[in-house]
Amino acid sequence: MRTADLLLLGASQVVTVDGGRAGPKRGPRAMNQIGVIEDGAVAIHHGKIAAVGTTNEITAAFRGSRRIYCRGRTVLPGFVDAHTHPVFAKMRVDEFAMRCRGADYEAILAAGGGIHASAAATREAPVDDLARGVRARLDAFLRHGTTLVEGKSGYGLTFESEIKSLVALRRGAARHPVEVVRTFLGAHVVPAEFKADRAAYVQLLIDEMIPEVARRGLAEFCDVFVERGAFTVPEGEAILRAGKRHGLKAKVHADQFRDGGGALLAARVHATSVEHVDATRRKGIQALERARVVPVLLPSASLFTGLKHMPNGRRLIDAGLPVALATDYNPGTSPTENLGLVATLGCSLLGMTPEEVIVAITRNAAAAVGREAEHGRIAEGRRANLVILDAPSYTWLPYRMGTNLVHTVLVRGRAVVKNGRLVKAHP
Amino acid sequence: MRTADLLLLGASQVVTVDGGRAGPKRGPRAMNQIGVIEDGAVAIHHGKIAAVGTTNEITAAFRGSRRIYCRGRTVLPGFVDAHTHPVFAKMRVDEFAMRCRGADYEAILAAGGGIHASAAATREAPVDDLARGVRARLDAFLRHGTTLVEGKSGYGLTFESEIKSLVALRRGAARHPVEVVRTFLGAHVVPAEFKADRAAYVQLLIDEMIPEVARRGLAEFCDVFVERGAFTVPEGEAILRAGKRHGLKAKVHADQFRDGGGALLAARVHATSVEHVDATRRKGIQALERARVVPVLLPSASLFTGLKHMPNGRRLIDAGLPVALATDYNPGTSPTENLGLVATLGCSLLGMTPEEVIVAITRNAAAAVGREAEHGRIAEGRRANLVILDAPSYTWLPYRMGTNLVHTVLVRGRAVVKNGRLVKAHP
Repeated sequence: MRTADLLLLGASQVVTVDGGRAGPKRGPRAMNQIGVIEDGAVAIHHGKIAAVGTTNEITAAFRGSRRIYCRGRTVLPGFVDAHTHPVFAKMRVDEFAMRCRGADYEAILAAGGGIHASAAATREAPVDDLARGVRARLDAFLRHGTTLVEGKSGYGLTFESEIKSLVALRRGAARHPVEVVRTFLGAHVVPAEFKADRAAYVQLLIDEMIPEVARRGLAEFCDVFVERGAFTVPEGEAILRAGKRHGLKAKVHADQFRDGGGALLAARVHATSVEHVDATRRKGIQALERARVVPVLLPSASLFTGLKHMPNGRRLIDAGLPVALATDYNPGTSPTENLGLVATLGCSLLGMTPEEVIVAITRNAAAAVGREAEHGRIAEGRRANLVILDAPSYTWLPYRMGTNLVHTVLVRGRAVVKNGRLVKAHP
Repeated sequence: MRTADLLLLGASQVVTVDGGRAGPKRGPRAMNQIGVIEDGAVAIHHGKIAAVGTTNEITAAFRGSRRIYCRGRTVLPGFVDAHTHPVFAKMRVDEFAMRCRGADYEAILAAGGGIHASAAATREAPVDDLARGVRARLDAFLRHGTTLVEGKSGYGLTFESEIKSLVALRRGAARHPVEVVRTFLGAHVVPAEFKADRAAYVQLLIDEMIPEVARRGLAEFCDVFVERGAFTVPEGEAILRAGKRHGLKAKVHADQFRDGGGALLAARVHATSVEHVDATRRKGIQALERARVVPVLLPSASLFTGLKHMPNGRRLIDAGLPVALATDYNPGTSPTENLGLVATLGCSLLGMTPEEVIVAITRNAAAAVGREAEHGRIAEGRRANLVILDAPSYTWLPYRMGTNLVHTVLVRGRAVVKNGRLVKAHP
């Protein structure tokens, strides 16, 4: 290893998130073992982590290397946002204002709002416009410390516009520092034109969309919204099993408003993750634990819509589940890219500790999107995606509510955010 | 007026917050008349607003002037944070972590935490250290669009350290773009050493601290925390009346946890504002309305401490009260300078409209701190303190939860924040 190519990054604190045993079956206390190294350092070589330890250990092992010491700062793994909806043509700020002025969601839907408004605009939009929107949102994720994002389609709801959405997601992320894991969510809702014949839409998903998505390699996951008003458990199961036959791993939006058996379905099809689970009861939680499904909790959506529903993070962790937290970034119910704020909500609203929320936006989130081999931890051989907080300890991330503490972001060892700003426009 | 000294600032939208009638008795609908000018412009001359209108009107009236047009952006009055505690020696991040890990507040107090920890550290700190802390926090307020802040003492709780705190507040704000209104809050809690003789502390406040604060011109307001565990209504009344005798206007922290008569006290002493009012019942609300007291609501503190208590913004507005929103910035229960996030919480949690939250962080907040003549509106003759949002409408401020949309801040017509960054270190 030529020392000329080495970068030693030291800081007041390095948090490896590499403390406990791997995998979902780590028990309720594992999420509090996050590997804190006071006065720590990371050695970076050709975009990968060569070593991590105390500054004394690392500087002794790698003499003569380029060194940066960040006094009073904290190094963490790049954040992972395991659940976002970033492909759409228009923010829904007017609908938000209507809702604040007293309109209920039914009235908004009747006025052509809600998800149907997103679908109408997304169907109209050229793919390059959608890709540009994705790219601008990835910039915002990056400024908030996120270097890996799961992104879903689901605002098209026709064969053409779902394919277009996934192409836009791929195109928007091309050569961007943020890596995107693509999920096909054609089963977001039944589109208005299929209201009278929902079975036909399910068949369209199974017979045409999923095969095309898989054939063109446009997604890695297939997701279904299992909820009253969206898809039933049998419909969801048929869609997810079709996805599996075509090599798409499963995710399930489940039990957001009531326990409708969505978590049980997620366990039955061995989904990688299950989303929301605000209302999941004991049987569902036990099934998730046995099937090693990662629950992805979305408290900013709960907050934005007035806290009518809220996941019980404490209970899920105490049941042994490897909880992840995500923004649920979308134009209707969670228009934020700020995982730091979500970390605050994990502590303030979900009964989680600062250690648990850090694991939930790094290691567990990487597991939720099938990227635990590269992302979410600072350990030898892993990709050098790192966040440097302008704070002396990781506890400040949830503590400094609504304040973006991200000072620097490295992706594959290269600074892409410095002093809170994007280093340059990406190609 | 020499046109060479004129700056014309145009934007997609200018919100004057100058729509309704002045004063607290404006009725429940007044807060929705915020004076929106699409394709608007502001003429600025020698640090003051010379005119505001449509871009066509303003450019016709002021020919040949220096012009800036902010396409896709929104101009608002500089935000006003009507309730903060910015003078203290140390953030209480460790206590936050303890609380998240399950310690209750009693245990934290017993371990020397809580407000007593702040008092111990603040008493030890040199005045210049406290002033530096204030200055750093004012920088953070400014980056989030706030150009006027009310700041309280109250972490000293001895004669010397309360005086020191107010001096630090004055010194920290000297020549800083953010204007600070100082409030004496020696009556924050009864300090530990007076536990056995609380009457002696009340006498110390009345006989020594208040006269000295007034004599040296260190504060404009006197505030009392009226709550179980802090001060009783009779104690609070004696302190506030002593303040009034020395020329200090009154504020009251009231009814945060239960209706203990604090709002009635605020009305009785004709306080300028009343803070928290989470639990105030109908009689208290009516009294506030009759006495024209401005309620200052603090939802970020409610959120950060787990939403056990929450003000009912909708009910207070519907009762005709000119509601203000503030951050309650402090190291224990609300470590955020982000009024935009507070605006989101006003919509999501307090039942307020986007228009009402804008008025609540500008015009009504200025009234809560006695600065309505200069701050909180865009109108001819007022100070040119302006915020330019990187968004095409004011509705985006509450909508884009946890995202700092502030692009530019002008103070007395001079840019002090550009592209989200402080223009320079202040002297």
